[in-house]
Amino acid sequence: MTAVAAPAAPRTRQLSISSAEKAQRVERVREQLGARGFDALVLFHPQRIGYLTNFIFVSTERPMALVVSQRGGLGILIPQLEQDHVKKAPEIENVVVYPEYPGERHPMHYLRDLLQRAGLLGRKLAADTDGYGDVMGYVGARLSEIDDDGSLTLATDIVDTMRQVKSPAELELVRESCTWGNLAHRLLQKHMAIGKSEIEISLQASSEAILIMLDTLGAAYASPGRGMRNPPVSAMLIAGANTALPHGMRREGGLKPGDAIITGAGANVGGYQSELERTMIVGEPSREFVEYFEAMLAIQEAGYLALRPGRTCGDVDAEVRGEIERAGLSHLTRHHTGHGMGLEGHESPFLDLGDQTEIQPGMVFSIEPGLYVPGVAGFRHSDTAIVTEDGIELAKYYPRDLASLIV
Amino acid sequence: MTAVAAPAAPRTRQLSISSAEKAQRVERVREQLGARGFDALVLFHPQRIGYLTNFIFVSTERPMALVVSQRGGLGILIPQLEQDHVKKAPEIENVVVYPEYPGERHPMHYLRDLLQRAGLLGRKLAADTDGYGDVMGYVGARLSEIDDDGSLTLATDIVDTMRQVKSPAELELVRESCTWGNLAHRLLQKHMAIGKSEIEISLQASSEAILIMLDTLGAAYASPGRGMRNPPVSAMLIAGANTALPHGMRREGGLKPGDAIITGAGANVGGYQSELERTMIVGEPSREFVEYFEAMLAIQEAGYLALRPGRTCGDVDAEVRGEIERAGLSHLTRHHTGHGMGLEGHESPFLDLGDQTEIQPGMVFSIEPGLYVPGVAGFRHSDTAIVTEDGIELAKYYPRDLASLIV
Repeated sequence: MTAVAAPAAPRTRQLSISSAEKAQRVERVREQLGARGFDALVLFHPQRIGYLTNFIFVSTERPMALVVSQRGGLGILIPQLEQDHVKKAPEIENVVVYPEYPGERHPMHYLRDLLQRAGLLGRKLAADTDGYGDVMGYVGARLSEIDDDGSLTLATDIVDTMRQVKSPAELELVRESCTWGNLAHRLLQKHMAIGKSEIEISLQASSEAILIMLDTLGAAYASPGRGMRNPPVSAMLIAGANTALPHGMRREGGLKPGDAIITGAGANVGGYQSELERTMIVGEPSREFVEYFEAMLAIQEAGYLALRPGRTCGDVDAEVRGEIERAGLSHLTRHHTGHGMGLEGHESPFLDLGDQTEIQPGMVFSIEPGLYVPGVAGFRHSDTAIVTEDGIELAKYYPRDLASLIV
Repeated sequence: MTAVAAPAAPRTRQLSISSAEKAQRVERVREQLGARGFDALVLFHPQRIGYLTNFIFVSTERPMALVVSQRGGLGILIPQLEQDHVKKAPEIENVVVYPEYPGERHPMHYLRDLLQRAGLLGRKLAADTDGYGDVMGYVGARLSEIDDDGSLTLATDIVDTMRQVKSPAELELVRESCTWGNLAHRLLQKHMAIGKSEIEISLQASSEAILIMLDTLGAAYASPGRGMRNPPVSAMLIAGANTALPHGMRREGGLKPGDAIITGAGANVGGYQSELERTMIVGEPSREFVEYFEAMLAIQEAGYLALRPGRTCGDVDAEVRGEIERAGLSHLTRHHTGHGMGLEGHESPFLDLGDQTEIQPGMVFSIEPGLYVPGVAGFRHSDTAIVTEDGIELAKYYPRDLASLIV
């Protein structure tokens, strides 16, 4: 008998980013800090903190801050309210708890304590913002004010540039998000009917999709949330002339024959987002509607072909805008070709004339050039595209053709 | 016959703040600017812009900014995407539209144009933040960088101090919000059952409440929104040991006998929020549960009595904390007595030891001192209180006693 290796323990599929991958991200941040001569990075934004650690939270008036030392461990500032919650992130060694905001001693003094204990006062610091943001009535000193002797450089890019290129594990979560967004959209279309209001259809589809998704994934779906805030999955629509506004709001009354519809669906899987939007019509479309719809399909397809590695985000937008100009429709555009997404529904880079970021495999974008005809309707499909070595993978499989999108 | 005055035209009940009241707010801002020697106030926060104008929006990576001149008209910076939407705010005279973010010319250059045209470059400016916030990948220059010759003072308080004291019209919207939050909570309690998951109960109650509320108010309900984002009304619950975390998240699995529950319900009426939270129990409570529950009721009642004009927010929190200490329960607190609310669910001032704001009639607070027993449960009711001339009006009528809150 020849000796064989012992079988590896079976791996269970994860719907979140592993602690090991987060630790690797922290190491990459430390390399960046070293290369750029910073002693530490201070982060206030919850998505950046959640990108590097297992501490996932929502910002309120109570500030939190993560400190990544170039040579030391991770430190965090939290309110007493979160002292049990932070135990989910044992990789954070130095936890400084303040009693409450605003408190008799302001939370920023506790952040100063944290920096002092870590030997970081008077050193070269980077931060994502100069102090905590303008959230729910929070007021406080800037970071540069509590460390007079140090130097502070604002650098959101240290983490955000890393976030732009997704790992295989991140891309799996984006694809899984697309699957459930697709279900919610299918249910949305199923529930559309003349006389039913936009919100009724949205609530029915979203509620059903949430329960099916959670029943399917069970305890594997570990993304925190509660109530309707940050729902696991949802779908919505706006109808009628409001669709001519790119970010149109709900209208009173039910669906009517001839209404144009613009939908949106997405899901949160392990914190990762996706986007699926469709232009639809109640009943038979007019000739005018068909013409704009076909034009919109063509410019979205131009976007599919334009997006590939080795060129810039600006190149992609320029190519799509060129197609729109050749079709004589530039006066109907209201926004760029698309945006990055990942932990946030919109994040950098942007498929925009002014964004010179180089397209790389692993980036994720919406492709959604739109046409807005005042008084008639808006025309916009949005699909989630993952950049590959030589083009894109469309992570969505929802039909795009008009025949499939008539209610 | 004696001459009589002609009857006034009938007034239709409004569920939003009138343009006249918003214009008065702008005048009060101008008085403040004059008194403090500022030539203009620049606002980036959507709630502050919506407080002063009819332009209601949600922040994305595309910055917007309102400029209130001490002597001139209102000016606004918006992306092309919003150019039709801004027509809902005709009181804004000077509209500067930039094509897109980031764009070939950054939006902050367009803000500089707006300031220049209004003769405000090089003058004394106040602003709520030094440039647009850290939202969805936005990066840009600070306001102080685009106006080198001017002086900039950060002053969130010019608007936020006004927001702290609500007008009669605002209080009507808060009361209306309470009514619908109450309905959502009633439906939440009705749908609670052993084996049903937290999110299923929350979705059922919220969906029903939304449809009943919109059917009732019809077109009078003019608050913008779409899909499940910023729902007109919603209710949620968390159950079991998670309740011991003040901001606990959803748990897998359904309600079980013996589960403690902490709920939350609220509605958005004309932009105004309210808060209703209850501690509940599935089945017969243990003696230990009853004791903590009764202690929580007593400290909330201490909060009801402590809140009145002529003292500070800190006095109120100190009085409640004194009650908790006398009961020997200080080790179970995790947060202060309550927070202001209005256009935001949490806003200043805070019923907190460190907040020296004087309590005034028309202020609105949550009263929600809580007790958190690790491994057992959290105990917290929250009610919305309007400060009157000599005490408070409790805007909520949901029962507080344990017998009413057993599932």
